Amino acid sequence: MEKLRRVERVAALTKLLTDMPGHLFSLGAFSQTFGAAKSTLSEDMVTIRQALAELGMGLLETVPGAAGGVRYLPNYSKERMQAVLDELAVKLSAPERIIPGGFLYMTDLLFQADRMARVGEIFRTRFAHLQPDYIMTVETKGIPLAFMTARAFGIPLVTARRGSKVTEGSSVNINYVTGSSKRIQTMSLPRRAIEPGSKVLIIDDFMKAGGTARGMADLAQEVGGRVVGIGVLVATIEPEEKLIENYLALLTLHAVEQQKKTIDIRPLQPDAALAE
Amino acid sequence: MEKLRRVERVAALTKLLTDMPGHLFSLGAFSQTFGAAKSTLSEDMVTIRQALAELGMGLLETVPGAAGGVRYLPNYSKERMQAVLDELAVKLSAPERIIPGGFLYMTDLLFQADRMARVGEIFRTRFAHLQPDYIMTVETKGIPLAFMTARAFGIPLVTARRGSKVTEGSSVNINYVTGSSKRIQTMSLPRRAIEPGSKVLIIDDFMKAGGTARGMADLAQEVGGRVVGIGVLVATIEPEEKLIENYLALLTLHAVEQQKKTIDIRPLQPDAALAE
Repeated sequence: MEKLRRVERVAALTKLLTDMPGHLFSLGAFSQTFGAAKSTLSEDMVTIRQALAELGMGLLETVPGAAGGVRYLPNYSKERMQAVLDELAVKLSAPERIIPGGFLYMTDLLFQADRMARVGEIFRTRFAHLQPDYIMTVETKGIPLAFMTARAFGIPLVTARRGSKVTEGSSVNINYVTGSSKRIQTMSLPRRAIEPGSKVLIIDDFMKAGGTARGMADLAQEVGGRVVGIGVLVATIEPEEKLIENYLALLTLHAVEQQKKTIDIRPLQPDAALAE
Repeated sequence: MEKLRRVERVAALTKLLTDMPGHLFSLGAFSQTFGAAKSTLSEDMVTIRQALAELGMGLLETVPGAAGGVRYLPNYSKERMQAVLDELAVKLSAPERIIPGGFLYMTDLLFQADRMARVGEIFRTRFAHLQPDYIMTVETKGIPLAFMTARAFGIPLVTARRGSKVTEGSSVNINYVTGSSKRIQTMSLPRRAIEPGSKVLIIDDFMKAGGTARGMADLAQEVGGRVVGIGVLVATIEPEEKLIENYLALLTLHAVEQQKKTIDIRPLQPDAALAE
């Protein structure tokens, strides 16, 4: 690479670091790429840290020692988190989202990359202290959100399938009862998907009674994982008693009134604790 | 926001621009956020453009006029593209990926966010001239890849489901025959997923005979879309005659030898045209 001026090098470093959240970059490798001394690069890092802090978007963590380096960790300020969730609540309140049967159409938003990137970074912000090794979800609609959460953490996503697939090798199956419709369903995960003993954070788009989340938690344990947290984008207020405890819902759906054409959905307050 | 020094402002601008590929930012809005003159910001853009070019990762496009602004477009240099595909081919050649029946285990790689981000940006680079309005895929394993392609373009993803779902409202169903196993399957898409007349780029993880891609193309047309291209991560060399034409495969699977425990998979050469 040609030798860059300082301001260009800072732009290039910002792009590389923020492109791979959680990935540890060695200053030595940067030093080679950019033909700059490590001390110079350390100053660049101070600059980037400052810029990210001003945006309220993330941290730059320095890991000391020979195997150390620097990594970008998405971390939202309370104001930024609130702004994202408020906007989502407004979008989801549009009456044209009501589907016959009192369901809420969310699919379009769930497949918008920029939006799901922000939600994933909010989950990273709220769940960072749990230090998960894997994000887990179940097909289909929750995948983009769970995937962007995995990206924000810099860890892999494992996706449970409904029924097992021949192209994924040996797998573990469990039966579970969906809490709302009381149907028995099957969910499976390839045996090789999770390293035994690792920490699993479950992410899904929607929770009513919590039967699907309960099934995922059981399946994760079945393949040797340890569930450290559960996050959902939207949880319904009813039933109050869910089949799981200690989940975090970013939005709460209070009511979908088909006759009155109103949707009552409310964002989490940034300081709120987990639902129990 | 506090007034930043130039180098901090460039870092912040790099983060904001590259976080939302394809999104048009107005210099006026940046001017307010950062308390800097538009002429100053234009100089910042020259710097960021230079840095991205040096990395071989993307372009910064300036759109003139009152409704104009600046946007980041992921665009890989040939060297970068080749490096990503070569690495993927090596990873996919590991003998432990062979699954009884001669299948290839790809799921772990398909759910790695950083890797799929790069593949999505390669699809953006190769398909930018088609100017699609939507990316389309079918559940499940292709979703992260298609989602990251949608992200690289800054456009929405629509995902066909196998069978129709009550929570997505009125939908269009088609039956299709999988080319390899000759089974009849159903695929559906919500009617409201695609604006009539819009351009659709189909992205999937794997293609054998092309029956699924053919089904997606038919379904896209059924809801009023126009298919402008098809991209797959891996296509098998056999059967040579696929059920669709003019697709782009980033990797070609020549053989999986269960006895010899070898996998022959080859990356696309960057200048190669579409398969016909």
